[in-house]
Amino acid sequence: MSNNLLVLQSDFGLVDGAVSAMIGVALQEEPTLGIHNLTHEITPYNIFEGSYRLFQTVEYWPEGTTFVSVVDPGVGSDRKSVVALTKKNQYIVTPDNGTLSYIKKHIGIKAVREISEIENRRRNTELSYTFHGRDVYAFTGAKLASGHIAFEDVGPELPVEAIVELPTVTTVIEDDLVRGAVDILDVQFGSLWTSITREEFYTLQPEFNDRFEVTIYNNDMLVYQNQVTYGKSFAAVRVGQPIIYINSLYRVGVAINQGSFAKAYNVGVGPQWRIEIKKIN
Amino acid sequence: MSNNLLVLQSDFGLVDGAVSAMIGVALQEEPTLGIHNLTHEITPYNIFEGSYRLFQTVEYWPEGTTFVSVVDPGVGSDRKSVVALTKKNQYIVTPDNGTLSYIKKHIGIKAVREISEIENRRRNTELSYTFHGRDVYAFTGAKLASGHIAFEDVGPELPVEAIVELPTVTTVIEDDLVRGAVDILDVQFGSLWTSITREEFYTLQPEFNDRFEVTIYNNDMLVYQNQVTYGKSFAAVRVGQPIIYINSLYRVGVAINQGSFAKAYNVGVGPQWRIEIKKIN
Amino acid sequence: MSNNLLVLQSDFGLVDGAVSAMIGVALQEEPTLGIHNLTHEITPYNIFEGSYRLFQTVEYWPEGTTFVSVVDPGVGSDRKSVVALTKKNQYIVTPDNGTLSYIKKHIGIKAVREISEIENRRRNTELSYTFHGRDVYAFTGAKLASGHIAFEDVGPELPVEAIVELPTVTTVIEDDLVRGAVDILDVQFGSLWTSITREEFYTLQPEFNDRFEVTIYNNDMLVYQNQVTYGKSFAAVRVGQPIIYINSLYRVGVAINQGSFAKAYNVGVGPQWRIEIKKIN
Repeated sequence: MSNNLLVLQSDFGLVDGAVSAMIGVALQEEPTLGIHNLTHEITPYNIFEGSYRLFQTVEYWPEGTTFVSVVDPGVGSDRKSVVALTKKNQYIVTPDNGTLSYIKKHIGIKAVREISEIENRRRNTELSYTFHGRDVYAFTGAKLASGHIAFEDVGPELPVEAIVELPTVTTVIEDDLVRGAVDILDVQFGSLWTSITREEFYTLQPEFNDRFEVTIYNNDMLVYQNQVTYGKSFAAVRVGQPIIYINSLYRVGVAINQGSFAKAYNVGVGPQWRIEIKKIN
Repeated sequence: MSNNLLVLQSDFGLVDGAVSAMIGVALQEEPTLGIHNLTHEITPYNIFEGSYRLFQTVEYWPEGTTFVSVVDPGVGSDRKSVVALTKKNQYIVTPDNGTLSYIKKHIGIKAVREISEIENRRRNTELSYTFHGRDVYAFTGAKLASGHIAFEDVGPELPVEAIVELPTVTTVIEDDLVRGAVDILDVQFGSLWTSITREEFYTLQPEFNDRFEVTIYNNDMLVYQNQVTYGKSFAAVRVGQPIIYINSLYRVGVAINQGSFAKAYNVGVGPQWRIEIKKIN
Repeated sequence: MSNNLLVLQSDFGLVDGAVSAMIGVALQEEPTLGIHNLTHEITPYNIFEGSYRLFQTVEYWPEGTTFVSVVDPGVGSDRKSVVALTKKNQYIVTPDNGTLSYIKKHIGIKAVREISEIENRRRNTELSYTFHGRDVYAFTGAKLASGHIAFEDVGPELPVEAIVELPTVTTVIEDDLVRGAVDILDVQFGSLWTSITREEFYTLQPEFNDRFEVTIYNNDMLVYQNQVTYGKSFAAVRVGQPIIYINSLYRVGVAINQGSFAKAYNVGVGPQWRIEIKKIN
């Protein structure tokens, strides 16, 4: 079922040789693999980000693609190493530490197996306890992606319900407002990507050029409150103006046209960054 | 005519999943594509830089290569999406916002076609207005690169003269001096790359180890004035010394051996950063 | 003997078109090459780092792989351009400026040849003196990796003893302590990677959870002194606590669990950054 494509994600950065060692290990297993990077710039140790970036991209890859995601602050502890088979027939090889949260919630997981590190570990790495990305995940990912092992050969099946999940924010919908959280940034442009879906926002029956009151809190501290236009895309407002828009994942975004909303107002991400969008009558 | 090679450039950075989504979309169109990055670190919204980096690299790629360049501050506005066929038989898929300037001027464009977004847009992205890089450009680039569509299938032809062009600086040549602008940096090393070509500079009949007076202005403000040696390469002067040299694009560069000229003297880029190189008699 | 895999390393960064030009040149030589990056984020001009990152990765790549490493402050000077054939049958194409030090010491070099720049230089680049990465190294690397030339065709053989080597730090072993240097950082996580091997450290007969006194000097200035636990991996100590561990190259590392040791104590790298690890009785 696998398609010989292997996609790597981590918080290792590209400044040293870590990612290259992972790619080499994979090509030693199978020289014809097509290997691509998702990103290696996940904020160190930030499992939530790793989970979100998988959710953001897997659906654009072909069926049968194998993803390896290594954000692994618990490396060497008793957290499990697993492979998930998604409902769209892709594999995700990762520590079971919350990385699968978004995939499980929004795409669905058919089955999950624990990696038997005895069989699916690179030889001569038994004394290496800190680089499972190379010794276990890239190695197992390459075996799966190339079809050298089947999903069943990964190791014993685990119940899907047992997968570690991070808490998520549920959108509150009232007559004239929606409330959610700032999940993550469109980093390069400093735009806020919220947890509020297009569908949830559309309960307010917005039309392009309508204005809404946007309020952002960091816990209980008010960080931003202003009227913002809902537009089709950034160019709908003048340069330097804020805009509410539907992002490429069909969620509500807040941006400044050709500026950085996150920098302008020092907005961060996570469940404590709450955002409210209210109809103006 | 296309050769199954697809080269991607953008201002998206590699920190999130945007580029990976583009690559996935392209591989869904054709799994055997060879996909490479030009750079994704174009300064956000800086169309000039995008144009320059294309000029800097396309000639080193095989005939038939397809480039996708997405620096697109006007996404969702009425700027056109186009494919250019260059005189060297390469394709460039991009918004028509000035990105093609350098290619048109220095390499030449045979023909340009507007992308019909009805036919050449990924299905189920009709409500996504902010990520043409994924939904239109990577998608169309993959179709072209793989030969699944021909150039003629892209959409209606436009007149080459109608391509949007950014203004460029013309070199002034006098008896004992040349004047131009600092176009861009060799970013990692902080060297200035000027608009003055080797040929133009050679009207001064320079020889290695000759010294010239270099003057740099930001608009009318004097930023730097000093005597600088013309050398074959950085090692021609001592560590920490400035040098005039011919860069890898056969244009005049100004650097500090193992230092950063741009940082040392706070030099920026663009038409307002004027540079004069004068013979010392 | 070559396997059609080409791996590129440099201090060029990925912000401009330099690396892409190298990749294009290689694909013009042979379109089927598998081209991968080691890293392009070597600190500018830092030959030691380039040498170390090669050592860190080559053993994870298949036999027959060709590496191109360009950290080349002496470009255009009389430093030689060479290809080394390692004892593990891989090629390394590089300026002979110390880049081969670690490979020679820890892996071994069978033979080395000087690149004849008349034959093994891209045509029409004779007036380009500053970008051997593109014009000579990527070009020669692609010819070798693809088997279009044999190792013997590179140019005249040089004595292996003549390879330029950087000085290295030898570990001092006493009854109750080992002394070495901080070679390099695990950059993303700020962990120190020392020159002390697992084997050398094990002369102290350490066991997991033993505590050691760690002292770090910058030349003669004391920078850090404290008791630190030896653990299997980061998770062996609480978040924020320091730890001694064996890194993925089987050398002694010093880290803070989910923190940055290098930032916390302003520790740098190089032979002047001396580290002592002493048994506590």
